[in-house]
Formats: sequence, structure tokens, C-alpha cells
Amino acid sequence: MSQPKSVQWIGDSDGYVELIDQTRLPLNIKHLECRDVSDVIEAIKSLRVRGAPAIGIAGGYGVVVAAIEARRQQLSSKESRLHIEHCAESLASARPTAVNLRWAVERVVCILKSLPDDASIEIVVDSLLSEARAIHEEDRQLCAAIGKHGASILPEGGVLTHCNTGALATGGDGTALAVITTAWEQGRRFEVFADETRPLLQGARLTAWELVQRDIPVTVLVDAAAAHLMKSGRVGSVIVGADRITACGDTANKIGTYGLAVLAASHGIPFFVAAPSSTFDQTIHAGDDIPIEERGREEVLSPLGRQAAPNESHAYNPAFDVTPAHLIQAIITEKGLIDSVTFDGIKRVLD
Amino acid sequence: MSQPKSVQWIGDSDGYVELIDQTRLPLNIKHLECRDVSDVIEAIKSLRVRGAPAIGIAGGYGVVVAAIEARRQQLSSKESRLHIEHCAESLASARPTAVNLRWAVERVVCILKSLPDDASIEIVVDSLLSEARAIHEEDRQLCAAIGKHGASILPEGGVLTHCNTGALATGGDGTALAVITTAWEQGRRFEVFADETRPLLQGARLTAWELVQRDIPVTVLVDAAAAHLMKSGRVGSVIVGADRITACGDTANKIGTYGLAVLAASHGIPFFVAAPSSTFDQTIHAGDDIPIEERGREEVLSPLGRQAAPNESHAYNPAFDVTPAHLIQAIITEKGLIDSVTFDGIKRVLD
Repeated sequence: MSQPKSVQWIGDSDGYVELIDQTRLPLNIKHLECRDVSDVIEAIKSLRVRGAPAIGIAGGYGVVVAAIEARRQQLSSKESRLHIEHCAESLASARPTAVNLRWAVERVVCILKSLPDDASIEIVVDSLLSEARAIHEEDRQLCAAIGKHGASILPEGGVLTHCNTGALATGGDGTALAVITTAWEQGRRFEVFADETRPLLQGARLTAWELVQRDIPVTVLVDAAAAHLMKSGRVGSVIVGADRITACGDTANKIGTYGLAVLAASHGIPFFVAAPSSTFDQTIHAGDDIPIEERGREEVLSPLGRQAAPNESHAYNPAFDVTPAHLIQAIITEKGLIDSVTFDGIKRVLD
Repeated sequence: MSQPKSVQWIGDSDGYVELIDQTRLPLNIKHLECRDVSDVIEAIKSLRVRGAPAIGIAGGYGVVVAAIEARRQQLSSKESRLHIEHCAESLASARPTAVNLRWAVERVVCILKSLPDDASIEIVVDSLLSEARAIHEEDRQLCAAIGKHGASILPEGGVLTHCNTGALATGGDGTALAVITTAWEQGRRFEVFADETRPLLQGARLTAWELVQRDIPVTVLVDAAAAHLMKSGRVGSVIVGADRITACGDTANKIGTYGLAVLAASHGIPFFVAAPSSTFDQTIHAGDDIPIEERGREEVLSPLGRQAAPNESHAYNPAFDVTPAHLIQAIITEKGLIDSVTFDGIKRVLD
């Protein structure tokens, strides 16, 4: 079965953005038609679309929706520009921590600015759509390259992954999950283990669902069972995605990643990160300098919205942790494998 | 506020076992009256009563319930013995990993065997009840001693615990949690962190509830956040309970314990086990020889009964893991501190 399309542009210059509502998965596969910018913003804010690359793609298409809105409202050239730029700012700030979102929105706005002031609204819509589609297509190719590079070095044995890093999170097949699915499609056979990934259960809800769609058997475990699983000898490698990687290779990713890396090291299991080169933040050297988002207490105290802990409990809910470079065997990028995770080793592959 | 009573014998030789249904906590405090052995077995299997010492106490009382059943059915002396011994075996094997259950059941059966063949059923019931009550009372005292010994060596800094090891899990104040509450009641002040402890969330549901009952502030975290918390410097010690400890100190406990021990070691944080001496199984040397209970897939795939993962997912759900002795700084028992966790070090304190 083909991969799910988390974000799609349906039609052409009279089209709209279609999103899978990821908050409903896996029990309901509901597609959202976003014909207004406010729909796109709501979907991003409510995590109906998630995963940094997928959010960026949705944001890029959101700017096109703004242009189509201007056309529908028969605004003047000047009013159209003001409307699109205003919408773009609202889109870019819908999730302030997602770097790709602002990056993609600004890339589309840049095209608007390059057009002559008196360009027709048809030209504007076509030009913006073309750029938004390019962002999407580039991400699809990045995913394919990461999947191919990763599959070529994936060790024997079962593979353990964390959170969701597949088609739902990107414009293509994913990052870490693309490595797994690419190796599988090449005919390799191995056990696939998905950490459920509390608090938001992206592993149980989304990764398991994606693998089921592809007829790849998946075994879900609670995050705390990973150590025992590793000790049992069934894990040949651990592979995860990344939200931000410093110039030295320290990697911020979903909470739980750092613990997995320590456990993998203590069991002699190679630990891989798979991420596009845009995930590297060359302005930051040390992992300790990456700001860690703290999220609300309900995610911890009320799993799937059902209260577990007493009202008086406090909660500790960092969304990410940082894995130091020395625990990472290699970083798989679209440009190839960074197998020496150091400042120089990273520079060598990325430049 | 006084501690909750997880297991109680109500009445005398015409009495019954009363349990708090721990699957309903913290939202509902429901008491179960167990007047049939099958009720006790069901409660143990379904984790309505849980925690190795509490299960042992319930098992001991369960043998008394078997004797009262025999009396009710007006069985002959010989039939009564057969019935009680048959029930005792079913009780002892209701959960495979906890050593206290079989130990307590056999201790009560031993009393039965010491009675003359023609002892009246009244004498049998009274004698068994007296032994089961002794087990309960001894556990209460064990908990107090463990709490005192542990509090005297508890390091500075926050304390992280896993699962539930408090009054709900024992006949008294608990084991690992008794160390925390005893230190707190002695006037020590420190942060208390409770791993939520998936899949059954005993940390979020039960430990947090017990601490709230005692007005001790508690911070709940998802299990996968423990590594990041340790790295932050807020954890001065980790303290957990045990379901079975081998002659060499390898310790079976709730899934996730082993991973915590590896993480504690890698952060230089002392890792303590608190357990009564009855938790030691001198017949087993290596941790690998401890049978590990595998539980059903629903616990993983449907947290709190709400489906998270797709139907086609498999689940990996070991209830326990084994922490090797070398990762344990000390074992706190009612007989004192085992600070050399080796065959000889254990023998020295226990004998």
C-alpha cells in the first residue's frame, strides 16, 4: 500500500490544501479540506498536522491559500499583497518553535516579493503554488535519499524506533522511518519495534499505523520496556529522527531519545539519527544551548485525555531531550552518512 | 492522613478479605469483599491487589477463605484439606514472578500440615487465620524498619521512584516509598519524582495518590523523561522496590527498573532497592533464571482502556525486568542495609 499523504495540494490554481487529521489517527482517517488560511492555521496549532517538515509544507501551501482568498475577494493588487503578507505572518507564528514553518512560509513570500507590483493575481497564485510545490517536492526527494543511504548501512537484527518520523511527519517517506521502510522494500526482513512514545503516543498511534498501512509487522512497547528488549538481544540498531542538531552533532529530539541512546551504548547497540541537512543549526555548538520546550501537565497526567493522576500532582513534561554526539554512531542525511559525529565530520559531509 | 489499607481481614473466623480495587484508583476508592477463593485469585490476576508484599498477604488470607469455604460446604476433614491445598496452589500460581505470594501461601499451608488430621474445621480456620494475620503484622513491622533504615542513608537531593511501593503495595507503609515518607516525616525536605510507570500507570495513579494523601508534593513524569531529569541534576537518588531478588542480588522488579538503573549509573546517581528479606529467593543465583511474566497486549495498545494503536499491531509486554546486582548501590531490608550487593554481602545481613 502506498504511504499516507499527510499534506497534499488538490487541484491547481483553484485548489486547496488537504491534510490528514493526525489527532484522530489511527482510529479515524479524516481528511481536512483547508480552503481558508484560518483552517490551515488551526490545523497547525492543534497538531492536526505535525512533524517539522510536514508543518513547513502546510505553511507554504497556506500562503497559496491566502492568495486564492485575495482573488476570491477581488482585492486590488496592493490589498492582495497586504492580505497575503498578513496571512503569512499568522501562518509562520502558528507554532513558534517549528523552524521549518517560518522558513517555508518566508520562502514562498520571497517569490511574492520578486514579482512586479502590478502582476495579476493569476500570476501571483501560480508563482506561489509553484514555489510551495517545489518545497514539497524537495522534501520528498530528501526523504528518498535518506531512506536509501540509511538502508545501505542498516545493521542486521531488529530495529527500534521512537516517536513518528514517517510519511505523516514529512512530505515523503519520512526520515528514520524511511530507512526502515526502504530496507523492507528492498527485501530485507527484520523485526520493527516502535516505542509508544509517551506522552502523545506518536509511536503507538502514528508509526504503528504507517507500518500497518505498508504491511510491515510492527511491535509496540512501552518506552520503559526498551532496556529489557535490548538486553534480550532482539535489537540490532536504534534509529530516530531529530528536531535540531548542533554544529558538533548534539541532537535534540523527542523526549526519551537520550535515554535510548544511553541504553543502546550500554548494550553495544549502534544508535543512528536520520535527518535532512536543514536540521543542523550551525549557530549552536553545545547541546545544552538548545532551548527545551516544556509542555502542559495534562499530557502527562491525562493520557489520551483520561485522567490518571490525582489533581494535586505536579508534572514534569519536557518535549525534547538532547543526545550528546558521542552516543551517536552516525547521522544519516540526504547528502550521505556522517559516520564521525564531530564538528569536522559533520562539516565534511554537509559542505 | 492515615495510610490506605490495601488488604484487610474483616471480622474473625467468619470473616472475609477486603481489598481496595487498585485498578480504579485514584478516581474511585472501591472496596472489594472477597468471600470466595476465586474472588481472591481474580483480584490478584487482575491486579486489583498488587505489590509483592500485599499480594502475599492477600494470598495468605486467601488460604483462610479456602478453609471457610470448606466449612461452608461441610466437607470432611480429608476433603477440607484437599480443598484448601488445591486452592493454595491456585493462589500461589496466580502470578509467577512475585516470590512473596508463594512464600506466604506456603507458610499458611505449613500450619495446616502441622495440625492433627482430625483437627476440627474450626481449629483449622482459627489456626490459619492466626498465621495469615501474623504475616500481615510482620509485614507492617518490616515496612517500618525498612523506612527507618532507608531514611537514615537517603542521600541529599530529589528522589526518583518507579511503580508503587507504598501502603497500597504492602501491609504497612511500603518499601521504597516508606523510605521517602519516613524521611519526609522526619522533617527532611526534597523533591519527589514518580515515574508514571506504563503500562498500568501505578506511579501516576497510586504513588502520586498516596503522596497526595500524605501532603507530600509529587511530580509525575513519563518514564521516558527520567534520563533528561537525571541529566538536569535534580535527582540525588533512585529508589525502587523488588518482586524477587536472587542469592547474588539480581533484582526482578516492574518493567522499566533495569533501564533506570543503567541511567542512574551513567549519571553517577546511587540506585537503591528496598525490600523485605522474604523477597530474596536463595534458590536462584542468576537473574536470567527468574521467570518473567508476559502480560496481554491490551495493556500496551490501549492505555487506560482507550485504544491508541491500530488493531494489527503486536505488543511486547513483559511485566518485569531484571537489574543486575552490580548496578545496585545497596538493598535496604528490615534487617539493615546490604551495601555490598553480592552473595556474601547478602548472606552476612540476612543470616
